[in-house]
Amino acid sequence: MADAAPRLSNGRSRIDFQTDPSKYRHWKLSVEGNVATLLMDVDEKGTLFEGYELKLNSYDLGVDIELADAIERLRFEHPAVKVVLLRSAKPRVFCAGANIRMLAGVTHAHKVNFCKFTNETRNGIEDASAASGLSTICVINGTAAGGGYELALAADHIMLIDDGSSAVSLPELALLAVLPGTGGLTRVTDKRKVRRDLADVFCTTEEGVKGKRAVDWRLVDEVVAGSKLEATVAERAKEFAARSQRPSAATGIALKPLKRERSENYVAYSTLSVEFDRPQRLAKIHVRGPDAAPPASADAMVALGCEFWPLRLARELDDAILDIRANELDVAAIVFSSSGDPAQVLAYEQLLDANKSHWLTREVSGLWKRVFKRVDLTSRSLVTLVEPGSCFAGTLAELVFAADRSYMLIGNLQGDNKPPARIVLNATNFGAYPMSNGLTRLASRFLGRPAALDKLKGTLGEMIDAEAAQDLGLVTVALDDIDWEDEIRVFLEERASFSADALTGLEANLRFAGPETMESKIFARLTAWQNWIFQRPNAVGEEGALKRYGTGQQPAFDTKRV
Amino acid sequence: MADAAPRLSNGRSRIDFQTDPSKYRHWKLSVEGNVATLLMDVDEKGTLFEGYELKLNSYDLGVDIELADAIERLRFEHPAVKVVLLRSAKPRVFCAGANIRMLAGVTHAHKVNFCKFTNETRNGIEDASAASGLSTICVINGTAAGGGYELALAADHIMLIDDGSSAVSLPELALLAVLPGTGGLTRVTDKRKVRRDLADVFCTTEEGVKGKRAVDWRLVDEVVAGSKLEATVAERAKEFAARSQRPSAATGIALKPLKRERSENYVAYSTLSVEFDRPQRLAKIHVRGPDAAPPASADAMVALGCEFWPLRLARELDDAILDIRANELDVAAIVFSSSGDPAQVLAYEQLLDANKSHWLTREVSGLWKRVFKRVDLTSRSLVTLVEPGSCFAGTLAELVFAADRSYMLIGNLQGDNKPPARIVLNATNFGAYPMSNGLTRLASRFLGRPAALDKLKGTLGEMIDAEAAQDLGLVTVALDDIDWEDEIRVFLEERASFSADALTGLEANLRFAGPETMESKIFARLTAWQNWIFQRPNAVGEEGALKRYGTGQQPAFDTKRV
Repeated sequence: MADAAPRLSNGRSRIDFQTDPSKYRHWKLSVEGNVATLLMDVDEKGTLFEGYELKLNSYDLGVDIELADAIERLRFEHPAVKVVLLRSAKPRVFCAGANIRMLAGVTHAHKVNFCKFTNETRNGIEDASAASGLSTICVINGTAAGGGYELALAADHIMLIDDGSSAVSLPELALLAVLPGTGGLTRVTDKRKVRRDLADVFCTTEEGVKGKRAVDWRLVDEVVAGSKLEATVAERAKEFAARSQRPSAATGIALKPLKRERSENYVAYSTLSVEFDRPQRLAKIHVRGPDAAPPASADAMVALGCEFWPLRLARELDDAILDIRANELDVAAIVFSSSGDPAQVLAYEQLLDANKSHWLTREVSGLWKRVFKRVDLTSRSLVTLVEPGSCFAGTLAELVFAADRSYMLIGNLQGDNKPPARIVLNATNFGAYPMSNGLTRLASRFLGRPAALDKLKGTLGEMIDAEAAQDLGLVTVALDDIDWEDEIRVFLEERASFSADALTGLEANLRFAGPETMESKIFARLTAWQNWIFQRPNAVGEEGALKRYGTGQQPAFDTKRV
Repeated sequence: MADAAPRLSNGRSRIDFQTDPSKYRHWKLSVEGNVATLLMDVDEKGTLFEGYELKLNSYDLGVDIELADAIERLRFEHPAVKVVLLRSAKPRVFCAGANIRMLAGVTHAHKVNFCKFTNETRNGIEDASAASGLSTICVINGTAAGGGYELALAADHIMLIDDGSSAVSLPELALLAVLPGTGGLTRVTDKRKVRRDLADVFCTTEEGVKGKRAVDWRLVDEVVAGSKLEATVAERAKEFAARSQRPSAATGIALKPLKRERSENYVAYSTLSVEFDRPQRLAKIHVRGPDAAPPASADAMVALGCEFWPLRLARELDDAILDIRANELDVAAIVFSSSGDPAQVLAYEQLLDANKSHWLTREVSGLWKRVFKRVDLTSRSLVTLVEPGSCFAGTLAELVFAADRSYMLIGNLQGDNKPPARIVLNATNFGAYPMSNGLTRLASRFLGRPAALDKLKGTLGEMIDAEAAQDLGLVTVALDDIDWEDEIRVFLEERASFSADALTGLEANLRFAGPETMESKIFARLTAWQNWIFQRPNAVGEEGALKRYGTGQQPAFDTKRV
């Protein structure tokens, strides 16, 4: 049972991705004017699983769930914050990275899920800067090792105290026989533009690099004497704040706890439901369109706060996806469906479009972008059923294009009088939601075929029926009621019969046609190699480095280069 | 001993990458006018390893070594050939792909090496078209399954006979629980631009796609009735030949067998040597500069044929690298050094530069490009020592930039009076040898720093000494004679102490800063996922699909999605 999951520390059986500052055990979020401070102060005892302690600001998924939550809250609850200072509350240590005993003890699946989520969190920090003008300054007062330095790498600006001992390092390879896999290798070369041979020296030097050399090698942006640290931090915060376009006077909205009721095979949210068909290994996510017209103005939208339907749905969908990823490993496929009035969905889109430059519009749209990226990176087969009465319009149509396969019903099922299935495109499908490869889902879908894309642009706002959608290439296949049930059932059964791993690899390739970005390189090149290494005896075998770390015994390596 | 290597069929202990048409067992190469035909006719008994038969034109590394050789020969020996027809001599089958029993029986390391080489061969087919104007038309008269269709995907044009049964397919996932990993997934989406959901259907449909649907889905370029096949093939060959810039009248040069003498720890080639330091797990490749001035003219170069020093060296280096990859798994690092007169090397470069548009210049330069790419993709730590008496100038300087680390000696070692170490750049370093990411090694090295690159362009032809090379960022570190030996020894010992797998992953990331291309996606995204899957029990476990294929027993899968 080497691959058995360790027990959660809270005695429950599921990892919960919902939290709020009142529950944080590891971070302290404070705001002063337009500068927030996010203070890492990991509670050694506050572990997600049993069997290890989070010493020296090391982290597990539980710590990162709080960090991700804090970044989201800064975007929605504190729109006037322009700079966040990422700091440690521990003396002489910034962050020791992912907890090694945790890594050594958890399953392969959890390692992969853990790295995926922490990568998404760090991408979220960069996205907050790029898309929302919320810069991060990382202040390293002590050692930033491994995942600790990788966290720093997500910041816009890295400051290192010049005290003769504080250093940044990526000791994973030397100590643990794994990679700095939370973006570390990619950000060192592609973001920081550290020369590859210096990066090689850095990544194989356990003790890391400090002082002026860290600046010369581009590993940090500046080193600062301890006596000048606070003044310099304040100065940098001011400089970065001055460049931000965030609204100085806006008041945020509270992200209240999600409404979520769980029974054995069913989770009810306010805007969607998840039904687990365990014999078939399916999670059926049914999205409901808005139950009321959109608010009349941006002010009314702000007044609704987190009750605003598009925001509520995005948060709930994000939670549902994360829950399936971490807690429902046996689910082979996620089947999306929807119900509602497409016109109502489009009315919400029109409100957002009319208030494009409003900070809340930007944040809601940005959250959708990240949720869809999370969907793309979910290692489950994704299937979307476009049925009568559905509302795949605009933003929601992305769920059709994110799917590995989509099926659309021609006409109606016998005895059913819902409106026939329709897909409606709008401008959001052509730019608002790029995938991690930098292209929209439609541009990835029609890679190298601009004429097909142009044709689609000519349909904006039109109700596209099943046969037209098939002709336009928007769905995999349109079926009539005679074939509908059987064809989908056979497909889903077949899908569940295939090797889970081979499907993960297949989908990780076919979903991302075309170019790569730093972000997609992290999820493909870096992560795929790390996942390979996470299977190799040199890391995870009984004599491997992860298992032997801290035992006083040297790991025994297979020396063959593969 | 599940990972023990099977025995070679020829009774020897090493895989040999050298062959020539007189030795081919699996391919027939014929030339008629400007059209060559490469006929696949795999000898079932002609296996590389014991324990399987190559039925239905399935292949192992031995088959691919011949294919790679044939493509090289078409470039050098047949410069007037403009089109190669890739066909099968077997009835009703084009090619059944990689042999499954071979895959099930070989080590993980061999699987990885096999896929790497076959990928390089298919990239070589595409490169022959893009860089040399030698197009490939693939004529599929029967089934092209798995690696068989992946081979077709490397062609410029795919013709499929329309006989009601001939089909193309990628059944790897359904049959074997692995990926179509020889570029298949990437070429389907990125080269053929098959829509991702249709690609999903195609890659999970064991029997594949035939007839008009294969064209509609962009899997092949045309289907042709059997009665019209030969006429249509002739017509297409004519069309593609008309577009080629290859010289219609040129006579080729013979690629004679390499001069190579092997003893236990030493391989002597005519232009380089490989010394194995087995206790230190090193392969030391010493490259020797030319021993004579270059020929006086392009005609004289042609007259020298494969004795022309740059060509000889490129072929010998390629063979040395392939030998280490496949046969010397315990080698942790390759250490490059050189000796010779940099001015003499540059004299050869000047000859080539003065005859840029000559077909042989183009082929020699193209071969170097591919050899350097092979070096980049070699999973051994690469170290270059720039010492007194060395000749890292122009093309040879790429071996400094390909290295994970480079060391340059300041001045001389005591008692040595060789000329001090110098590096010389010329125009070839700024364009002739792109890496698989599309950038030159210098552009990758100085990613996002155009000023540093411009500064280097200002040094063309200058002899750059150690301290200047360090200042310019051309070498990792310049050392004086006091530190030289110790520093390098300590580094190499440390390197050999690290986990082999972690180093492979580290180097596969740090070497390829910046953008990705279809080629680099194949070697990173696709290959890394495949390597992961090649470790997973669902594929390679005792109950996995690869092991159980053909036994009549269904594989037993772990259903967890990771």
